[in-house]
Amino acid sequence: MLKNGERIDDLNLNGLKIIQHENKFKFGMDAILLSNFVYTKRGDKIIDLGCGTGIIPILIAGKSSNTHVTGVEIQRDVADIAKRNVVLNNLTDRIEIINDDIRNIVDKLGVEKYDIVTTNPPYMPHKTGFDKSNESENISRYEINGGLQDFVKVASKLLKFGGKFFMVHRVDRLVDIVYNLRICNLEPKKIRFVHPYVEEKPNLVLVEAKKGAKSGVVIMKPLYIYNREGKYTDELLSIYGKTTIEEE
Amino acid sequence: MLKNGERIDDLNLNGLKIIQHENKFKFGMDAILLSNFVYTKRGDKIIDLGCGTGIIPILIAGKSSNTHVTGVEIQRDVADIAKRNVVLNNLTDRIEIINDDIRNIVDKLGVEKYDIVTTNPPYMPHKTGFDKSNESENISRYEINGGLQDFVKVASKLLKFGGKFFMVHRVDRLVDIVYNLRICNLEPKKIRFVHPYVEEKPNLVLVEAKKGAKSGVVIMKPLYIYNREGKYTDELLSIYGKTTIEEE
Repeated sequence: MLKNGERIDDLNLNGLKIIQHENKFKFGMDAILLSNFVYTKRGDKIIDLGCGTGIIPILIAGKSSNTHVTGVEIQRDVADIAKRNVVLNNLTDRIEIINDDIRNIVDKLGVEKYDIVTTNPPYMPHKTGFDKSNESENISRYEINGGLQDFVKVASKLLKFGGKFFMVHRVDRLVDIVYNLRICNLEPKKIRFVHPYVEEKPNLVLVEAKKGAKSGVVIMKPLYIYNREGKYTDELLSIYGKTTIEEE
Repeated sequence: MLKNGERIDDLNLNGLKIIQHENKFKFGMDAILLSNFVYTKRGDKIIDLGCGTGIIPILIAGKSSNTHVTGVEIQRDVADIAKRNVVLNNLTDRIEIINDDIRNIVDKLGVEKYDIVTTNPPYMPHKTGFDKSNESENISRYEINGGLQDFVKVASKLLKFGGKFFMVHRVDRLVDIVYNLRICNLEPKKIRFVHPYVEEKPNLVLVEAKKGAKSGVVIMKPLYIYNREGKYTDELLSIYGKTTIEEE
């Protein structure tokens, strides 16, 4: 099950586990926060764009009992880990991993077939200076194979009318996010900011948008990571329990 | 100085005072928060769109020493109060009040003449049901004479390249705000949410945008009105001191 340089981490949710490679992009707290932010109903068809080793499909399938999740990952070796993670967690009937560029996926899967699209896309604009020694990390972190606009466009095509889009991103991209969502007919309905510290500014944003919805957004109460004593807040602990994650 | 139904309130800032009419729209905490959010430099030419009785021009002129502020107000009797407020505060050389529709003002004043545009526009979409007995209040609260899009379009035309736009609005309009700013070449650079209570969701938003700027926004730390004891927070007290305001 494990190849050279790989390890298995326990996700501390219903016995779920995940294989990751020591030298490639490993999921962060943002993926956990996004998975927790998503809510599903029975029978939902879900697709995760840029799924990496499958953390979001696995967490969503693991916390819902009657959904199907497709994960799309461009990197062949990373998609290979994701496929093994699906087997490892006995979720082969609930999760499918596709190794392809998200920009090809509408042709392959068709339009308006999904109830929910999730994505934790690369955060950094291309050519902002990256570590040339680690191409795999670069592809996960930088907008090399499709930027925010591509992810939003593809999501809008994949979603049924009334379908929902959930994303986590850096707050400095908020205007890009909101603008692109609206021009793609995905109206932002809920926004939640993630603040590392109480009463300090946020660094991440969680966005829920709905295809074809009218204007009008709720800014939710802040989500704080650390309390005034420098410990994880009760809400954060309730979200990821004892999952071991690497902080970025 | 005072007409029937009017009163004078002390603004508790450098001896500033304001005349308001008992039965018309009276300024709220949002106007105070916006005035505090604005920062100016020597020689700035400032224009306030929809100035009401002149609260924002008066507060900005009162806290800066070398600026000129134009206030535009569509309602003749309200603009008349604003003009008397300028006289009352000995600011006739620093503030000019124009009684006109903001949609006519670019033709009158010309394009790209201002360093700063401020606005506390009507918050509510037209025809969402209003009190028919008070036309003046309706004009101040509802988008009867120009909506958000008009205010943003006019602001963009009035501003010099690199000029700044400051607005306060309801959070549920955030997507409309951000979208309209971007399509009018006013890029949001700072956003601050105003939360009535600590750790609850915000109801107002303060936005600073810059004409012609690149993408990239800072979400500032939350501004809380009340602390956990139900008293005004220290920050709020420092903003408006002992100014008597009517809460909406």
